[in-house]
Amino acid sequence: MSADLVASSNDRGDFGTVSAILKQRFGERFSTAQAVREQHGHTTSWLKNQPPEGVVFVETTEEVSDVVRICAEHNIPIIPFGTGTSLEGHVNAPEGGVSVDLSRMNRVLAVNSEDLDCIIEPGVTRKQLNDHLRATGLFFPIDPGADASLGGMASTRASGTNAVRYGTMRDNVINLTAVLPDGSILKTGNRARKSAAGYDLARLLIGSEGTLGIITELTLKLHGIPQAISGGVCPFPTVEDACNAVIQTIQYGIPVARIELLDALQVKACNAYSNLSLSEQPTLFVEFHGSDASVAEQAEMFGEIADECNGGEFVWTAQAEERTKLWQARHDAYWASLGLRPGCEGISTDVCVPISRLAECVLETAKDIEEMKFVAPMVGHVGDGNFHVLVLVDMDDADEVARAGSFISKLNKRAIAMDGTCTGEHGIGQGKMPYLEAEIGHGVDVIRLIKTAIDPQNIMNPGKIALPRQ
Amino acid sequence: MSADLVASSNDRGDFGTVSAILKQRFGERFSTAQAVREQHGHTTSWLKNQPPEGVVFVETTEEVSDVVRICAEHNIPIIPFGTGTSLEGHVNAPEGGVSVDLSRMNRVLAVNSEDLDCIIEPGVTRKQLNDHLRATGLFFPIDPGADASLGGMASTRASGTNAVRYGTMRDNVINLTAVLPDGSILKTGNRARKSAAGYDLARLLIGSEGTLGIITELTLKLHGIPQAISGGVCPFPTVEDACNAVIQTIQYGIPVARIELLDALQVKACNAYSNLSLSEQPTLFVEFHGSDASVAEQAEMFGEIADECNGGEFVWTAQAEERTKLWQARHDAYWASLGLRPGCEGISTDVCVPISRLAECVLETAKDIEEMKFVAPMVGHVGDGNFHVLVLVDMDDADEVARAGSFISKLNKRAIAMDGTCTGEHGIGQGKMPYLEAEIGHGVDVIRLIKTAIDPQNIMNPGKIALPRQ
Repeated sequence: MSADLVASSNDRGDFGTVSAILKQRFGERFSTAQAVREQHGHTTSWLKNQPPEGVVFVETTEEVSDVVRICAEHNIPIIPFGTGTSLEGHVNAPEGGVSVDLSRMNRVLAVNSEDLDCIIEPGVTRKQLNDHLRATGLFFPIDPGADASLGGMASTRASGTNAVRYGTMRDNVINLTAVLPDGSILKTGNRARKSAAGYDLARLLIGSEGTLGIITELTLKLHGIPQAISGGVCPFPTVEDACNAVIQTIQYGIPVARIELLDALQVKACNAYSNLSLSEQPTLFVEFHGSDASVAEQAEMFGEIADECNGGEFVWTAQAEERTKLWQARHDAYWASLGLRPGCEGISTDVCVPISRLAECVLETAKDIEEMKFVAPMVGHVGDGNFHVLVLVDMDDADEVARAGSFISKLNKRAIAMDGTCTGEHGIGQGKMPYLEAEIGHGVDVIRLIKTAIDPQNIMNPGKIALPRQ
Repeated sequence: MSADLVASSNDRGDFGTVSAILKQRFGERFSTAQAVREQHGHTTSWLKNQPPEGVVFVETTEEVSDVVRICAEHNIPIIPFGTGTSLEGHVNAPEGGVSVDLSRMNRVLAVNSEDLDCIIEPGVTRKQLNDHLRATGLFFPIDPGADASLGGMASTRASGTNAVRYGTMRDNVINLTAVLPDGSILKTGNRARKSAAGYDLARLLIGSEGTLGIITELTLKLHGIPQAISGGVCPFPTVEDACNAVIQTIQYGIPVARIELLDALQVKACNAYSNLSLSEQPTLFVEFHGSDASVAEQAEMFGEIADECNGGEFVWTAQAEERTKLWQARHDAYWASLGLRPGCEGISTDVCVPISRLAECVLETAKDIEEMKFVAPMVGHVGDGNFHVLVLVDMDDADEVARAGSFISKLNKRAIAMDGTCTGEHGIGQGKMPYLEAEIGHGVDVIRLIKTAIDPQNIMNPGKIALPRQ
């Protein structure tokens, strides 16, 4: 496939000109202050901060369109920004340009309870949406660890603990509105639950990490809050036993809503950070959704499987308050882990493999961690075959940083060799670019073709996912 | 967005040259016989047969790649063909060219029971796959009326009666392999259940109706055959009552596996064609999947809703044999309907609206049918808001054909105005091209940009979904 790609990065325009235009158009809502710029290049990771040259705080789709038109005219990069909680350098500005901060576009525009959907602006966060929905009996299930913006979650095809039951952002967006690289506004479709009308443009934008356009509105599927929710924690003597319990649960078809593995080190970190008193051994956090009868049945079936896999005593959390505390601890695992080695940075991996390979992948990885003497707790959405290792690295120790790089590279290649992916939910961004071709081969060329067709100037979040071929 | 589109249709090469090359390469497996050509332009619809100039019966991905390279070199159109059961002229060859018949690529390459997935060639049909899976305890749920090929189902983003519970082809393909318009081979990803690795190329191909490439392999999600399946039929005094029962079932969150509406005329047709003795009034066909307890609970809840909506006696089909007969009758509804007016053609509509608008959309449409004096039974996957009217038209009566066109146009526009789609599952093909822009606006331009980037010669199934801008 011949890709006539223009390396237009070399012909960037004058930022000063764009800055003056944006200042005039947006006044106080456009900033070039150093602190604001650095905050918008923050990467929640070991990737170095590459701040944009300016930040504009937009409030409407039309304003986003205006900013994009101005930048397009001057060939200046545009980097969409939600909450800045992405993990692979998505908000970095390696070629400079304007960060478009969408956090003020945070209105819930409509809740159509009867259709189980809602229409929101992209700056609405997942917690904000669920707070808003509280009185309706509905909820939005996708929950990455951070309280991320839903626009950002769509852009990175995020998932979280509920994906095993409710799917990922891919499955829960009905349509979206996006400003394309020429400033034009695309709405991908209407509110029908399914459609066979032309290319699936919503799915193309979801996971494109801001490289094809800026999402400015989303219609999301909602789900009824289950009549009954129950779950709890179950310790296992080994990680392998815990993995086997997960594999059997999935293969048995138990419609578990959440099934998360924490290794012993992660449990220790969570005990300390979240004031829990769990037994410090490999542990599954499990949750069941359904009617009273169905939840009881699921729990019983899971209990039998856990028993067979040498599981210890299953501790129930029937109270909503207790349950919230437990899952908050799970969501805070990242912060808890950082406490294991103060002063170090955490580098999160994100591999996902077919569930039949899960135990093997986890065990080989655990062996590497031991051999390489890393402090690296493990936690994961194991029902999907997805797990994270958080490698705690002293960034001032060049040798350690290099060894961490080797470890991560080996893990990503292992997952790909096991018919899996280097990223289940964090995205490619800058950090995983070296692995994409190994994983999807010729797909990288197709991505470049599409990118060049839709963004010939390469102004939309350049330097992410794949570089144009020079 | 400026689309530099080349109307390369005008520069087609010499078919004779390509024909000679294919004859030499494929021998008996390449045919230019009139009967074979016409069979491959058959459209199962009122659209006129536009046969390809030749048909090649391929057996491997590499052969598909060879055919595509040969056609690309000579700028000759390529039309993928599975079972020819699509409804919108997808297999027609308006610009001539070569039909690539994939029916001999019908091997199940792997069943990974432990991962709940399988790898198949595109010519495998849905029934063939489920027969193959019989001993595994797994099944593939997507069931359009016809026993279509899975490659074709992916290409049109098909769904069917189970979509309300199991999703559509969009949701059940893990990865795919496709031959692109330059003959290169794309594999979109590995077997991980979820991935955030770059653009969602699988979803881009799914629903692209062969205009971006030819699908030659699919990895599909499988599901465990439920422990218990039960269901039956429930008559209602009016279509509105039946719709209201559906709406409440969905809003209540009952995880119904199938919920299908047949209007009185459709029931009459099915009684005659499938030797049933149902009461000839609007009727819901319903099925529940789960454990014994959960199925009983779902049925009880549905029973209460049906009662509230003036439903008649719910007739259970507990026996597998009885159930199969009932659902076969549902799948044969199209053929049954044709019997209502022998000698006429059936034109199927495919609108899908948010469920809150379903009753209104169905009722306004029923009113049109009555006023326009059409014989036009109605059947639908109403749990998704999707329903079909089969307008029986005497194709020799020009006035009737024109009136049918007006009716369909009005219905499609009504669905779009109700925030829905003109096609829930059949696709755009040739037949629905006039409605796509009304539905997705600027999206048509984006489709053209992508199409031109990936298929600059416009050789892949030209004349479907959207025409290049001249």
